[in-house]
Amino acid sequence: MWQPPKALSLVAGHGEGGSELNAFDRALRDAGVADLNFLRVTSIVPPGARIIELPAYPAGILMPAVFARIASTRPGDVITAALGVGLSREHHGVIMEYAGHEGRAEAERTAKQMVVEGFAMRGLQLDEVFVVAAEHRVERAGSAVAVALFWPEAAGLERASRPARDVPPKGAGGRPR
Amino acid sequence: MWQPPKALSLVAGHGEGGSELNAFDRALRDAGVADLNFLRVTSIVPPGARIIELPAYPAGILMPAVFARIASTRPGDVITAALGVGLSREHHGVIMEYAGHEGRAEAERTAKQMVVEGFAMRGLQLDEVFVVAAEHRVERAGSAVAVALFWPEAAGLERASRPARDVPPKGAGGRPR
Amino acid sequence: MWQPPKALSLVAGHGEGGSELNAFDRALRDAGVADLNFLRVTSIVPPGARIIELPAYPAGILMPAVFARIASTRPGDVITAALGVGLSREHHGVIMEYAGHEGRAEAERTAKQMVVEGFAMRGLQLDEVFVVAAEHRVERAGSAVAVALFWPEAAGLERASRPARDVPPKGAGGRPR
Repeated sequence: MWQPPKALSLVAGHGEGGSELNAFDRALRDAGVADLNFLRVTSIVPPGARIIELPAYPAGILMPAVFARIASTRPGDVITAALGVGLSREHHGVIMEYAGHEGRAEAERTAKQMVVEGFAMRGLQLDEVFVVAAEHRVERAGSAVAVALFWPEAAGLERASRPARDVPPKGAGGRPR
Repeated sequence: MWQPPKALSLVAGHGEGGSELNAFDRALRDAGVADLNFLRVTSIVPPGARIIELPAYPAGILMPAVFARIASTRPGDVITAALGVGLSREHHGVIMEYAGHEGRAEAERTAKQMVVEGFAMRGLQLDEVFVVAAEHRVERAGSAVAVALFWPEAAGLERASRPARDVPPKGAGGRPR
Repeated sequence: MWQPPKALSLVAGHGEGGSELNAFDRALRDAGVADLNFLRVTSIVPPGARIIELPAYPAGILMPAVFARIASTRPGDVITAALGVGLSREHHGVIMEYAGHEGRAEAERTAKQMVVEGFAMRGLQLDEVFVVAAEHRVERAGSAVAVALFWPEAAGLERASRPARDVPPKGAGGRPR
C-alpha cells in the first residue's frame, strides 16, 4: 500500500460457467490469472512503470489489479471486456475500463477513445496506447474480463538481477497505437 | 500486498437499519466485525492457510476480506448472504460468494455447488467444504453478510508463539462436507 | 495492509466527460486526486486518526480510500455524492457514504443522519461530524465524488518531523457539528 507499482501485465479471457461467478472464474482462468486474490484498483500507470509478460506467481497472494468485467445469462448475447492503457514517456499513464454488450472491435474503439480523453484532460502527451480485450458469446452464463495486474518490481514479484524484457500485452489485442 | 494470507476467519450476520448502509453496518456488527476497514478481495484460499476463530484486532485496521453482501428495503423480503469455502489439503482452495432473495438452505446449497464447480474447473481435489451464511427477513431496510477475513499470520495479526487451534467457522452454518 | 491509517484527507468534486468513467475521472481531478490508484475501503476512522489537508503525493501510488460516487447520463439530472465523517475523541469513528439523485443540502443531511445512527449503534459518543459533498447538474455524462483518503502517517505519506496542523476538510462542506 502507498507505493507505486513498477510493472503491469495485461491479460484477457472469457468463458462459460454454471453461474455468473463461476463464468467469471473461468474467464480469469482463460486469462491465466484465476488463482489470485484480486483487489480492484482505479487506474493510473505510475511514471516509469513497464508492461511485462505475466510472470510466475504463487497461488493466493493479494494482488492489486484494474478490471473490466462483464457477465450475462442471456443466451446469444455478445459481451466484451476491454482495458485501454495509455502511456506517456515522461509522465504517468491512464487505464480505462470498458465493458459492454457488443463486439470486440467496438469495445476496443471505446476504450481507446476513453484513454485519449483521459490524457487530454490531464494535458499529457499520449505516446502509446495498448488495448487488451476479450469477447464472449453467451451460451448459458458467460463472462469476459480484461485485467491489468500491478507488480511491485520491474520484473514482477522479485527484484530482478537483470531487467525483464519489455513485451507487448499477451493474448488479446495488444497493439501499439 | 503481494503476500498470501495465512489464516481465514469466517463470520456472518444480519440486521436492520435506517438505510441499507446502516443495515449493512448492523449486519457486520452482528457478525462481530463492524469496526474494520475492509478491502474487498476475490477469492482464493492460499495453500496451507487455515480457518481460525475470529482473533482480537484493533479498530480501524485495513483488512482484506471476501464478502457476500445483500441488502433490501422491501418489507417481508427474505435475503441470504453465503460464502462457500473449499479446501484442498495439498493445494490452494476457492471461496465463492453468493447472495440472493431466498432462504438460507437454498443459498447454502448454491454456494456449495459453486465451490464444487470451481474445484472441478481447476482439476483440484476438494477435501473439505465449509459454508457460512446469514438469512434476514426485512422489516424496513435489512442486510445480510458473510465474510472471510484474511489474516497475515496463522494466529491472526501476530506471529503466534504457538499455533492457534483450528476451529470450525463461527456461528452460521459451518460444517464439514 | 493490516495497519490503521493515521490521518484522513476529505475532498469532493464533480465534472462532465464523454463517458461515465471519464466524468468520474474529471470529478476526481476536480477534487485534486485524479492521479492515484484507489482501493475502495469501508469505513472506520481509527482511534486517534486526524483529518489533514490533502498532502503532496507521487502519481500512481496504491491509495486506500472511502468513496461516495455517482454518475448519470440523464441531462438535467442533479446528483450529489457525500461522506459523513463522525469522530469520537476517545474511540474510533465512522464514515458513511451516500450518493443520490438530489441536491447537496438533502444529501448532506442524509449522510449526517447515517453517521448519527452508526454511533448510536456502537454506543459511542459522537464528538464531531464533518460532511464533505459535491453536487453536479448533468449535461451529457456527469459524475460527483466525495473521497476520504487514508494516510499511513499523521502528516500523510512521510513520518513528519513535526505534526501537521489539523485542518477542516477542504472545499466542499466541512463543518463542525
